[in-house]
Amino acid sequence: MLYVSRKEHFNAAHKLYNPQWTREKNVEVFGPCANENWHGHNFDLIVTVKGLPDPETGFVVDLKKLSTLIRNEVTEKLDHKNLNLDVDFMEGKLPSCENLIVEIWKILESKLPSIGSCSRLHVIRLYETPRNYVEYFGE
Amino acid sequence: MLYVSRKEHFNAAHKLYNPQWTREKNVEVFGPCANENWHGHNFDLIVTVKGLPDPETGFVVDLKKLSTLIRNEVTEKLDHKNLNLDVDFMEGKLPSCENLIVEIWKILESKLPSIGSCSRLHVIRLYETPRNYVEYFGE
Amino acid sequence: MLYVSRKEHFNAAHKLYNPQWTREKNVEVFGPCANENWHGHNFDLIVTVKGLPDPETGFVVDLKKLSTLIRNEVTEKLDHKNLNLDVDFMEGKLPSCENLIVEIWKILESKLPSIGSCSRLHVIRLYETPRNYVEYFGE
Amino acid sequence: MLYVSRKEHFNAAHKLYNPQWTREKNVEVFGPCANENWHGHNFDLIVTVKGLPDPETGFVVDLKKLSTLIRNEVTEKLDHKNLNLDVDFMEGKLPSCENLIVEIWKILESKLPSIGSCSRLHVIRLYETPRNYVEYFGE
Amino acid sequence: MLYVSRKEHFNAAHKLYNPQWTREKNVEVFGPCANENWHGHNFDLIVTVKGLPDPETGFVVDLKKLSTLIRNEVTEKLDHKNLNLDVDFMEGKLPSCENLIVEIWKILESKLPSIGSCSRLHVIRLYETPRNYVEYFGE
Amino acid sequence: MLYVSRKEHFNAAHKLYNPQWTREKNVEVFGPCANENWHGHNFDLIVTVKGLPDPETGFVVDLKKLSTLIRNEVTEKLDHKNLNLDVDFMEGKLPSCENLIVEIWKILESKLPSIGSCSRLHVIRLYETPRNYVEYFGE
Repeated sequence: MLYVSRKEHFNAAHKLYNPQWTREKNVEVFGPCANENWHGHNFDLIVTVKGLPDPETGFVVDLKKLSTLIRNEVTEKLDHKNLNLDVDFMEGKLPSCENLIVEIWKILESKLPSIGSCSRLHVIRLYETPRNYVEYFGE
Repeated sequence: MLYVSRKEHFNAAHKLYNPQWTREKNVEVFGPCANENWHGHNFDLIVTVKGLPDPETGFVVDLKKLSTLIRNEVTEKLDHKNLNLDVDFMEGKLPSCENLIVEIWKILESKLPSIGSCSRLHVIRLYETPRNYVEYFGE
Repeated sequence: MLYVSRKEHFNAAHKLYNPQWTREKNVEVFGPCANENWHGHNFDLIVTVKGLPDPETGFVVDLKKLSTLIRNEVTEKLDHKNLNLDVDFMEGKLPSCENLIVEIWKILESKLPSIGSCSRLHVIRLYETPRNYVEYFGE
Repeated sequence: MLYVSRKEHFNAAHKLYNPQWTREKNVEVFGPCANENWHGHNFDLIVTVKGLPDPETGFVVDLKKLSTLIRNEVTEKLDHKNLNLDVDFMEGKLPSCENLIVEIWKILESKLPSIGSCSRLHVIRLYETPRNYVEYFGE
Repeated sequence: MLYVSRKEHFNAAHKLYNPQWTREKNVEVFGPCANENWHGHNFDLIVTVKGLPDPETGFVVDLKKLSTLIRNEVTEKLDHKNLNLDVDFMEGKLPSCENLIVEIWKILESKLPSIGSCSRLHVIRLYETPRNYVEYFGE
Repeated sequence: MLYVSRKEHFNAAHKLYNPQWTREKNVEVFGPCANENWHGHNFDLIVTVKGLPDPETGFVVDLKKLSTLIRNEVTEKLDHKNLNLDVDFMEGKLPSCENLIVEIWKILESKLPSIGSCSRLHVIRLYETPRNYVEYFGE
């Protein structure tokens, strides 16, 4: 079993704000991340798939196709967007990295077979800053 | 003459949007950066001062004091903020990196003497992404 | 299960020197790392915790609290210190990265519940240089 | 159990080209990577071994010895070489990262005991670019 | 005057080989870089232009247009290519970074006006590896 | 004129401590950097030379020779050393980055002609941490 990874990125705005709480409670819990006028990040997204290399190509997955899939299905929907307002698959969800990565997993897991590889999704890593990141293995 | 640099960072939201233009013209010129719901970045800011080392300390400038100055006067006013809405020194200005760095220069140039060094501001570098940055030498 | 990581850093001096050996044997085994006058590094420390996101915050752990915990309990005790002489929890231990990371694990595992999260410590990664690092999963 | 890692690098040329296919099919599958006149990369190689620290040295493995082993047995055979033409252990194999990392694993696994450590090979990570990498755990 | 920079990259093969010398002399001078079967690198290219910000856009240059220009005129002609064999503007030239950057300068200087900015080319930086790079200011 | 740069590194211990001051004054001025038991860093050193490319080699300078020169004359004398105690050319000097880089300049300027290039030393950049660095142009 080999694990193959591709890094993509997107730049987005968000705020961490629970609409069922008062403004004071939001500031208390989320600090400056609750700023009602938003803040933003350059996010890095690393997608890892696993599988056996195809004997004819030497590839577990064609990384150009994987890159295109991630861009079409995920990062183009997030890049230069507001994660609270502009992203259909985040509607009604608090846009923490934890909640965001779970939705990204669902999309990529369902779409991965479309690029014609037997590989399976293994892990996603999402960097909010160079010092903060979250990982999800799908369970 | 020696040149001493300190890197700080801030995470902010902005949009590139000229209020004197129609929405269509803004989208035409600024593309996805004109998204009315904002987007954002992890900005890196490198401040370079120049001077002669103090013979008693070996320092052109005390980097802890320079770091504190940059944080108090600049990055705390930008971090987790909206550059169009929340920053007094950007009021009425289009928050491109070019316009932002000129205002940061003005602040740091006027405040640098307050940390008790004979150094002078030499250049500021502002990264909007790891691949896009702007520099200003004060003239 | 989600895995959330935070990177912190500290700058420290150390030497690799087994006091039960002769100086010659130390130099033979540890090479320049045995320099009696010490050497040092900029260490990077990545702490990963795992858990389920809190439905109200979307957080596995509040990264500001995790950062504060790591700083108060670990990096402030190591930063600008001598790992052989100045660090109570390394007393009597050879300050290799391997021995250091095990002690850091013990501290963080015992203190993690104090920041009010159900997350558990998953792995620690300690970089001595950009090219040398060690990881520990607690067993 | 502790996991200790060392990063090395090499710069090499290669092409992705299946000699049993027509040129057209190669271009269709491999795109610009099939350029008959070659292209190349700065590869980064991270080798991770696992084991218990030796009580006398605090080391799972002597990283200088591990570095020397990787250089002598692997990277010197790849650096400034053509992966299709110059590397005995890649003869007859399509030099994808997947195929290359499996051969590197075989070499390092067989040679690791020679540096006198009880550590075992755990994982190898091979970066072809900063955004594309592959990992192999030996099975 | 403001300085605005954009980083692009390309992956290419080359060899350093003076055809007027014997093979022995080439190996003596260029060492492993003279390998007749080529080697390669991931090159990073940073292009810096200078000018005054347009009052209506806040831009010295539209970085999307600058990026497109660099890709169309330079990096697409170099990416996944052999610098000795495949690049028209390097024909008959030894593909050292020094010679390559001078040709890149000529192209970009002549094409920069086409993207409708008053900015002028200031400096180009070309990384062959993370540790080796060359800069050219056009004179 | 072309500018060619090479990055090297060294790991060293030091303290910032003026022996003509009391311990209290040293702590007041240098803070944790005055720790009598030392601290340390992974230093990065970038050396830039300038000149015209040799028409026969395409090189301003042979970077392998420049690398060897920097290692032999500078970094081997600093690596795994104590900058206050072990380095002849820092004797009697406070080992701030500013004082250190001036001494490195003197060495490299005098030795550069020995590698047989007409290039001249242009600038040195010394990183103490990824966020703090100093530059010197020789005057």
